[in-house]
Amino acid sequence: MPVSKKIQASIEKSSWIRKMFEEGIARKAKFGAENVFDFSLGNPNLEPPPKFREVLMRLSKDPKPGQHGYMPNAGHVQTRKAVADYLSKLHHLSFGPDDIVMTVGAGGALNVVLKTVLNPAEEVIIPRPYFVEYNFYLDNHQGVPKTVPTKPDFSLDFDAIEKAIHANTRAVLINSPNNPTGKVYTGQDLDTLGDLLKTFSRKLGQPIYLIADEPYRKIVYDGVSVPSVFASYPETFLVTSFSKDLSLPGERIGYAAVNPNMSDKKTVMNGMILCNRVLGYVNAPSIMQRAVADLLEETVDVSLYQRKRDMLCAGLEDCGYEFSKPEGAFYLFPKTPIEDDVAFVTALQEENILAVPGSGFFGPGHMRIAYCVDDRTIEKAMPGFLRVIRRAKEY
Amino acid sequence: MPVSKKIQASIEKSSWIRKMFEEGIARKAKFGAENVFDFSLGNPNLEPPPKFREVLMRLSKDPKPGQHGYMPNAGHVQTRKAVADYLSKLHHLSFGPDDIVMTVGAGGALNVVLKTVLNPAEEVIIPRPYFVEYNFYLDNHQGVPKTVPTKPDFSLDFDAIEKAIHANTRAVLINSPNNPTGKVYTGQDLDTLGDLLKTFSRKLGQPIYLIADEPYRKIVYDGVSVPSVFASYPETFLVTSFSKDLSLPGERIGYAAVNPNMSDKKTVMNGMILCNRVLGYVNAPSIMQRAVADLLEETVDVSLYQRKRDMLCAGLEDCGYEFSKPEGAFYLFPKTPIEDDVAFVTALQEENILAVPGSGFFGPGHMRIAYCVDDRTIEKAMPGFLRVIRRAKEY
Repeated sequence: MPVSKKIQASIEKSSWIRKMFEEGIARKAKFGAENVFDFSLGNPNLEPPPKFREVLMRLSKDPKPGQHGYMPNAGHVQTRKAVADYLSKLHHLSFGPDDIVMTVGAGGALNVVLKTVLNPAEEVIIPRPYFVEYNFYLDNHQGVPKTVPTKPDFSLDFDAIEKAIHANTRAVLINSPNNPTGKVYTGQDLDTLGDLLKTFSRKLGQPIYLIADEPYRKIVYDGVSVPSVFASYPETFLVTSFSKDLSLPGERIGYAAVNPNMSDKKTVMNGMILCNRVLGYVNAPSIMQRAVADLLEETVDVSLYQRKRDMLCAGLEDCGYEFSKPEGAFYLFPKTPIEDDVAFVTALQEENILAVPGSGFFGPGHMRIAYCVDDRTIEKAMPGFLRVIRRAKEY
Repeated sequence: MPVSKKIQASIEKSSWIRKMFEEGIARKAKFGAENVFDFSLGNPNLEPPPKFREVLMRLSKDPKPGQHGYMPNAGHVQTRKAVADYLSKLHHLSFGPDDIVMTVGAGGALNVVLKTVLNPAEEVIIPRPYFVEYNFYLDNHQGVPKTVPTKPDFSLDFDAIEKAIHANTRAVLINSPNNPTGKVYTGQDLDTLGDLLKTFSRKLGQPIYLIADEPYRKIVYDGVSVPSVFASYPETFLVTSFSKDLSLPGERIGYAAVNPNMSDKKTVMNGMILCNRVLGYVNAPSIMQRAVADLLEETVDVSLYQRKRDMLCAGLEDCGYEFSKPEGAFYLFPKTPIEDDVAFVTALQEENILAVPGSGFFGPGHMRIAYCVDDRTIEKAMPGFLRVIRRAKEY
């Protein structure tokens, strides 16, 4: 076999996604990109805030000596200091630069954390539905996903989590605001989760870690705010990126932070720095480290995403789709009017509407609509959304 | 245990390197950085070529829409096209954009290739001495290093390689110009290696891949040129970066290329693109992809490294050190005058000279001196180098 058995299987397993993706490309070629309504990707359509460009121009015009060279594997100390100060203010805790590792996006941060803590066959509890890349990230480090359902409104189901914990449980991985549901967990729910993990960590005689993936923290609507995971539980990792709030997903810049009160923090941080190095990341891209240090208070104009959400929700509600209105991120996760979400998404495709079946997120009977797109795309797709639900209901 | 058993062991095993590194920092604090002669790191001391700055200024001043967004996981097609054209000219073969994956440096590229091809417990043959990170990279994907000696001049030992091949052999990994020895393999040696691998691939009934790690390809001296691995063997991966030839190691930009004539090329490329994504890299940093597309013909002024090499070699020869003169890269790998290389490097440290014991590269009885430093550092370190070898010879 030219590639490893595992990679061969992954290629085969993902062939339906590829086929769908290729069908989308073929449709764009046939009908023109402007006539295909692509809601399939979480690629922000907003440009980075103007200050990003200013900072980047300054960095390229007046480079400091060694600006593009190696720095400590954890990242530039000035950047880690800036992130630590920012987090201290946000979470009312005292972070230092040694609590931070700058990473190749949140994907890099998650892999660093998972490699640091996971022994082979240890389990990570993940509420469904969830970002499908988590399975790959766990598998990279021989970890095993233990998925648990959420409640009908996509909030945490503590009975399910409690039942899933056993001797081999190493961590719980949460993502709020959530991809694909847009759910934001409440402070009370995080406290309940923290208490539950404290109880079971005591029983197991070692901490069950909480890993909070928060790249959408700043993308929230209607005054919702994302409560601090650090306040609810000491054994917490935060992983995040600037991909969404600064619209820089292609630049691969993010970080991992540990709770300043984590037990064995020093060993954990040494492990994370080692893992950042040996996973081949080595360090986060240098120029973007320099840039984000000056942009921690910046965010794209979130009101634009809120308008898109409102347009999409109003339109789909009129068509008769059922969903929980997202509180954050830029995804809507409606029920598909028929149980077979792949069939429904295929029907949408025939109307030149591209969405992702919920099955791809372990949330069958749903579909994910990424609304980080032109307003026009939302508007023009509505008649198609209506025709497909009508046809589905005729059966 | 707060971290995984494997990471705990790695932290403990690398504690002597850390101690040595911390001793270096302590000495810089005590004696002043300018009085500590640090030859321990492969961090180029030359700034990127002036054209890099021009290109970066243009990219930051006139960003294209979506310039910092996601692109295909393999990288921007324009960049891959430029790299393919460059490689076609260099190797007299016809590369296309689909033969290239842009990566997070050569470290990222190596991890992508290894994850793509390795099944658990499969072996990769590596000539000693070699860059110690290879062991971590293999272990990330449950591969096993099978190290083989080189000849006294650090050229390939084909008997040793042949003896090391068996049913579980998946690949041979070479690095020319070499870190830590500066050796450049000849075209004839690559042909011999290619023939050997063809013979054994036939016997095994599947290709043994050749992985060529070539970040130092452009850093060569005295008119030496690095022959094409592609010409010698079809089942070849090239992994490289712009870290050394453009002095951009902190920016994490490189690529992997496959031989256009590789069998099962399409499956292999699909695997690599998947691995680039699921290892959490997702894609190489976008702005650097754009930049290097315009800089493929650029190189730092290599004559400056040649001068440093010559200064260092002349000085150490006068002191009585024994070594093979490097043909490329910016490392010298002399014999230590006493067998215990760690003890010798510790003695150098007492003269405020920082080098790395050869044991760290599986080449005991040697040390690595990275001469990508100020000329002044080389000059001022000489009296210390002399005193330490004199004391060593007194015993």
